[in-house]
Amino acid sequence: MSTPAKERWIDALAAAGLRRIQVGSFVSTRALPQMADCADVVRHALSIPDLQVSVLVPNLRYARAAFDAGAHALTVPMSVSEPHSLANVRKTHEEMIEEIRAIVALRDARYPGTTIEIGLATAFGCTIQGVVPENDVLRTASRVAECGVDSIHPADTVGFAGPAQIRRLIPRLRAEVGETLGGIHLHDTRGQGLANVVAALDVDVHAFDSSHAGLGGCPYAPGATGNVVTEDLVFLLESMGLRTGVDLDRLVEARATLAAGLPGVELHGHVACAGLPKGFVPATAAA
Amino acid sequence: MSTPAKERWIDALAAAGLRRIQVGSFVSTRALPQMADCADVVRHALSIPDLQVSVLVPNLRYARAAFDAGAHALTVPMSVSEPHSLANVRKTHEEMIEEIRAIVALRDARYPGTTIEIGLATAFGCTIQGVVPENDVLRTASRVAECGVDSIHPADTVGFAGPAQIRRLIPRLRAEVGETLGGIHLHDTRGQGLANVVAALDVDVHAFDSSHAGLGGCPYAPGATGNVVTEDLVFLLESMGLRTGVDLDRLVEARATLAAGLPGVELHGHVACAGLPKGFVPATAAA
Repeated sequence: MSTPAKERWIDALAAAGLRRIQVGSFVSTRALPQMADCADVVRHALSIPDLQVSVLVPNLRYARAAFDAGAHALTVPMSVSEPHSLANVRKTHEEMIEEIRAIVALRDARYPGTTIEIGLATAFGCTIQGVVPENDVLRTASRVAECGVDSIHPADTVGFAGPAQIRRLIPRLRAEVGETLGGIHLHDTRGQGLANVVAALDVDVHAFDSSHAGLGGCPYAPGATGNVVTEDLVFLLESMGLRTGVDLDRLVEARATLAAGLPGVELHGHVACAGLPKGFVPATAAA
Repeated sequence: MSTPAKERWIDALAAAGLRRIQVGSFVSTRALPQMADCADVVRHALSIPDLQVSVLVPNLRYARAAFDAGAHALTVPMSVSEPHSLANVRKTHEEMIEEIRAIVALRDARYPGTTIEIGLATAFGCTIQGVVPENDVLRTASRVAECGVDSIHPADTVGFAGPAQIRRLIPRLRAEVGETLGGIHLHDTRGQGLANVVAALDVDVHAFDSSHAGLGGCPYAPGATGNVVTEDLVFLLESMGLRTGVDLDRLVEARATLAAGLPGVELHGHVACAGLPKGFVPATAAA
């Protein structure tokens, strides 16, 4: 996707009312050449009023680039499963903890306004390791909290999570790290994404990662076909009386901008296909 | 789909552990020629031990055929939305109530062992009428309960339902018709199917209609792309520790039997595509 196409896409999403967008990753441009323009994309996104601009960074080296670009928030992945960590960022747990400590120290010293968030990957299971014990999740969350990060977002990186697991694990995580527990990152790999959102709402989670048209996934997690679809998520929340501030019609229209920038890519999502229910009044519009 | 193919498909589903299958509809063979062999299919299904054989019938005339065929249970659709009723079965509410009374009277007189269930169509909204007031749902449910039916199953015929609506409406319905409230019939038209299952479980619904590979829909409900996918539903329930008695691997394998009988049809469902999580132990297997 060209840089101008990315910028038009972000513009369209912001115009639909999204107030926080992860616009790219600072990563090896050899491994992911499509992210080589991340600093340019961040610069453009920062020009949009009231938009919180977030990026993903795997280590201190790329965190420096993200700080320099002026991103408001950095997401650092920390896998609970060590085999996944080695596959995803080629680092052991100890090495990742060192990176996170160094990123926080750099932030504290030179970029005090920037938020550091942890994507607690494979918190609900791992395609390599299989079952991930809850005590491992708690211990890993506790260790990254001690590094001084701002928030921790448990991630169902490979789509293994279920509602009962979420209702059990989230309160335990909150007991362990308190208000450092942030939102949740859910995938729809096995069709359970929105069911898991309902379960997460029940245990007072109020922030949800999602991706427009369900784009994305994880190159090191076979079968991980992408995050919860933003359009379907917003419909769910609005139908439950929760005001997202997002204009669903414009969010669906923004798919055309995405498709123009990535011709041939498969767009996911049910609401965009079926349309909104006749007579449906979103909570945001009713407010 | 040929009659032998339907029978092989039902065999495969029963072998996967399903104990109740709606095997067909007794309806006008001019409108739905693919249902012309319904009596033969019922006869075959009745030969499977421990399988409850259910069929759909729109009126007294076809109920007679279903009784004669020996089906264990008849589902009669009763739309809360009158425009939907007129489009779906060409009958007003009053005319449908008369049909239901006559079906119950015939059952009481000659087929006392047969169960009569109402699919309370458009209980969560209608593509023709739009919003369906909850009081209309309660009134319609109350009227069919008074006819002497065995159970009433609210149906999200066109995929308008949301979790908050389900948590609100189901307790009101139960207060209105008591234990006559049966399971729930959910569609995934807008991707909310399993999220709605989670909400329904919270209000003590324990029976869910679904369709293998998500086949089906409603010819008079544009955009109604089919029921919740059985495979994904069973995975959800098993992951929540609920024993369905269904062998998920065999249920997924049964898709090959379905596909052989309906070449070219689009099969839906995530679990069949992504596979079960590594290390996943279904509640049924653990029991």
